[in-house]
Amino acid sequence: MDADTVAGCASLAMLLEVSGDPKPGNVDREHDYAGTRYEHFLASAVGVYPVFRAAAASRGHVGRWLRRGVEASRAWQQGGNTHFGTLLLLTPLAVAAGAARSPGEVQARARRVAATTTVEDAVEFYRCFEKVHVRLRPVEDLDVYDPHSIREVRRRGLTLRDILRLSVPGGDRIAGEWLHGFPATFRAARRLAPLMERWGPREAAVRVYMELMAEAPDTLVAIKRGRAWAERLQGEARRRLDAPLEELHRWDRRLLAAGMNPGTTADLLAGGLFAALLRGYRP
Amino acid sequence: MDADTVAGCASLAMLLEVSGDPKPGNVDREHDYAGTRYEHFLASAVGVYPVFRAAAASRGHVGRWLRRGVEASRAWQQGGNTHFGTLLLLTPLAVAAGAARSPGEVQARARRVAATTTVEDAVEFYRCFEKVHVRLRPVEDLDVYDPHSIREVRRRGLTLRDILRLSVPGGDRIAGEWLHGFPATFRAARRLAPLMERWGPREAAVRVYMELMAEAPDTLVAIKRGRAWAERLQGEARRRLDAPLEELHRWDRRLLAAGMNPGTTADLLAGGLFAALLRGYRP
Repeated sequence: MDADTVAGCASLAMLLEVSGDPKPGNVDREHDYAGTRYEHFLASAVGVYPVFRAAAASRGHVGRWLRRGVEASRAWQQGGNTHFGTLLLLTPLAVAAGAARSPGEVQARARRVAATTTVEDAVEFYRCFEKVHVRLRPVEDLDVYDPHSIREVRRRGLTLRDILRLSVPGGDRIAGEWLHGFPATFRAARRLAPLMERWGPREAAVRVYMELMAEAPDTLVAIKRGRAWAERLQGEARRRLDAPLEELHRWDRRLLAAGMNPGTTADLLAGGLFAALLRGYRP
Repeated sequence: MDADTVAGCASLAMLLEVSGDPKPGNVDREHDYAGTRYEHFLASAVGVYPVFRAAAASRGHVGRWLRRGVEASRAWQQGGNTHFGTLLLLTPLAVAAGAARSPGEVQARARRVAATTTVEDAVEFYRCFEKVHVRLRPVEDLDVYDPHSIREVRRRGLTLRDILRLSVPGGDRIAGEWLHGFPATFRAARRLAPLMERWGPREAAVRVYMELMAEAPDTLVAIKRGRAWAERLQGEARRRLDAPLEELHRWDRRLLAAGMNPGTTADLLAGGLFAALLRGYRP
């Protein structure tokens, strides 16, 4: 697929994700976090465009494009981390889409991209953390903020896939997408397409966000607040799958006040939107 | 300036403009027009990115990039016209920025771009209307929707500047920017920079939007509702320059209910944001 089309779909996916509203606990049109505002997400989504174009044109080097995406996201806005998880999910999809002859091939090719990472990709992953502070599941003894980790990654010959595999047992959903062929991402895309036609992207994004949260405990909530809280949120989301928007607005206010931020669920929503846009959906 | 930086600033300007809220009478985060929604503006802002990059890299052919921008804006969304006026204002600035060694040169170079248009640029301007329906001030006897006009434009040897000059006496503000060196655009940029630092882009955009509306009658309102209404809105904006946001929300609801849409004022705001971003502002 054309590299500009892929990049445009990636940027627009990030814009439609953050504009889905209300997304309980996350930044959206009407809700900022202190220091990280809606506009920071807009700027970051635009700033990464040329990196996604390069990723789609290059057909490899997924670690490099991830690191460059993180740098571009940082350079275009002064808030906190906006898109690390989203970039981790979207970058292999963009590399895959650039190599695909049609949208139907993207998932299979993304699986191959995720299966064939190198030690250099792992090193680039570690270099991301020179630029952003992200709360991550610990990668065993290879702390992403320890400058010695990169040497150790090289010494042990670990690929990016190896690094991500170390995160899966702890329940990292983005790492799980990498290892299992992006099932939640493409399921979300298939759910989004008809809902966006019926309701428009704003409400469709909210509904699929709730479904994604109901599927599994949110990784970011689990890291920040513990697994029990993440499971509790999952259960609460499940009970609200058909709730009226007014009820979701109320729940949103409660989660925001408690700083309960299901950021990984928003990343997966961005992935689903990206896949739906690659298949040709336009607002 | 780097072509990707220029394109990113153009797309982000369009995103910050539509996200400025409340912008009385216009589409913003919380207000759609029937058939033309906030998301259509997001998609259009991303879709035109590669055209702005090409415009910045090419250093000429302003009419071609305008027409391609209009086509890209159309191709990425299914709503009505989102950005014709904005593209007419931003395209010469992007060509100028691509050729500029520093942001301080952009206005002088944009003046030169606007002064040196060709007959081919005029023909490309007419070709835009094969793709979008826009309410425009009549260009004397050269109706933009008449397929014979292009032949007549060639026969008379009219440049794009000539065409825009025919629109100025009727009060077209974007054409006025072209002919007079983009004064309102760069004045808005100088006003926006400190306000964005103080309040963030959402409220700064609203304040400068009100100032732009208070400066002159809005072109789109004048075309759709007549000059008297446009002047009345100008006066009402002037009285509300320091109004609290709550009062602007109320006025917004009244204008939207009346279909009173100062779209040209929003185009000028996008121009001011573009110039401020080119000078290095980041949210």
